[in-house]
Amino acid sequence: MDHPSYPVDAVNRVKRMHERASYDHARVHAILDAAALAHVAYVIDGQPYATPTLFWREGTRLYWHGSSASRMLRQQSAGVPVCVTVTHLDGLVLARSGFHHSANYRSVMAFGHAALVTDEQERRRALTMMVERFFPGRSAGLRETTPGELKATSVVAMDIERASAKQRAKGVDDDPEDARLPIHAELIPLHTVLGTPSPCPDVRPGVARPEHLAAWQAGRHLDELLAEAHRATFGE
Amino acid sequence: MDHPSYPVDAVNRVKRMHERASYDHARVHAILDAAALAHVAYVIDGQPYATPTLFWREGTRLYWHGSSASRMLRQQSAGVPVCVTVTHLDGLVLARSGFHHSANYRSVMAFGHAALVTDEQERRRALTMMVERFFPGRSAGLRETTPGELKATSVVAMDIERASAKQRAKGVDDDPEDARLPIHAELIPLHTVLGTPSPCPDVRPGVARPEHLAAWQAGRHLDELLAEAHRATFGE
Repeated sequence: MDHPSYPVDAVNRVKRMHERASYDHARVHAILDAAALAHVAYVIDGQPYATPTLFWREGTRLYWHGSSASRMLRQQSAGVPVCVTVTHLDGLVLARSGFHHSANYRSVMAFGHAALVTDEQERRRALTMMVERFFPGRSAGLRETTPGELKATSVVAMDIERASAKQRAKGVDDDPEDARLPIHAELIPLHTVLGTPSPCPDVRPGVARPEHLAAWQAGRHLDELLAEAHRATFGE
Repeated sequence: MDHPSYPVDAVNRVKRMHERASYDHARVHAILDAAALAHVAYVIDGQPYATPTLFWREGTRLYWHGSSASRMLRQQSAGVPVCVTVTHLDGLVLARSGFHHSANYRSVMAFGHAALVTDEQERRRALTMMVERFFPGRSAGLRETTPGELKATSVVAMDIERASAKQRAKGVDDDPEDARLPIHAELIPLHTVLGTPSPCPDVRPGVARPEHLAAWQAGRHLDELLAEAHRATFGE
């Protein structure tokens, strides 16, 4: 059946714990779409940088944006190689030995060449998607982007040429003989959750919290909300 | 008074939103010590990588570790330039225009040269610190690290040569004229919190949850626990 995956070579082949690895679109995309934040690695004059940024996925393409004055975005305008990494830290694993202490996580490393989106219509659409990707239905009710704002904003796109997903999602994995020791061991789950949304103090009287934010409630898990929002905006 | 800071040059000078920037040890270290996860950027044959890893700070030195077979760690054994980035995503800012949608965050980019810790005693000590940095007092009660485990584990250290901290920690910052529009705007805080710790099913009868984990309770914020643990292990 249809089971697309990213090509594998020396750049993205997972060497360690390869039983935790996948190159399938479905696995890679699920980890990406549950995240708001990526770290983009790039090189300037031999010096590597990892810059945090909000991002989103459309098909096999990733987007991020920022100020046109940004060093990162200016550097990435020319089709340079980048690595976009997304990581969810899902838990801490407390074993009976230091060696088997570990973490649960989901991560993706996506490789490609970053290039500036130069077409103004595509850039305008991308800025709308940047909002819709979080809050489907929100952009239509916003004050429109001005020409000056559009000019001040750079959008970078990267076709995913290679990618790998890696995941640890289990409990303590001690050596069998260690399980007999009188030492406590446990899994501590971690979640990124919403606090209580705080309306802007000067919201006009009578302006209610819009229906498109109904799911964004205190206690909800960010990864679940982002995955739902991505499906609502882009489909599967 | 004593107010040490990292030197600034073209590599780490914050160009965008420099009012959000700091090079002070205190600000940089506070953001690092509240985090478990870093993304390490490095270059192999011109290809940048950003690899997620657990890490910790001692003084102005960062440590991370992993399998001796890891591509990342083998690459970093020779004193190569790296960038270690730590990011806390603290909130989503919903403005009245797409342009002013934003995120609250704290981030550090730390630059230096990664080198393998070759001395066996220093490596052993580092592996103890890796546990203590999370759970002060835990390592003494664990099954000891075996020579084979020590051999299988690489530790990388990086003296921070340059660093910058950047932070956004405020509410909606709309254009003044936009505040009059009948559009809802709000700040959604985000926190990484603990779920309910789950004991290993085969913990021996009579082995209680140790006192050194007392603070690690469901609902606690990970960044606060990590900052407390770092202070308890290393002092200020």
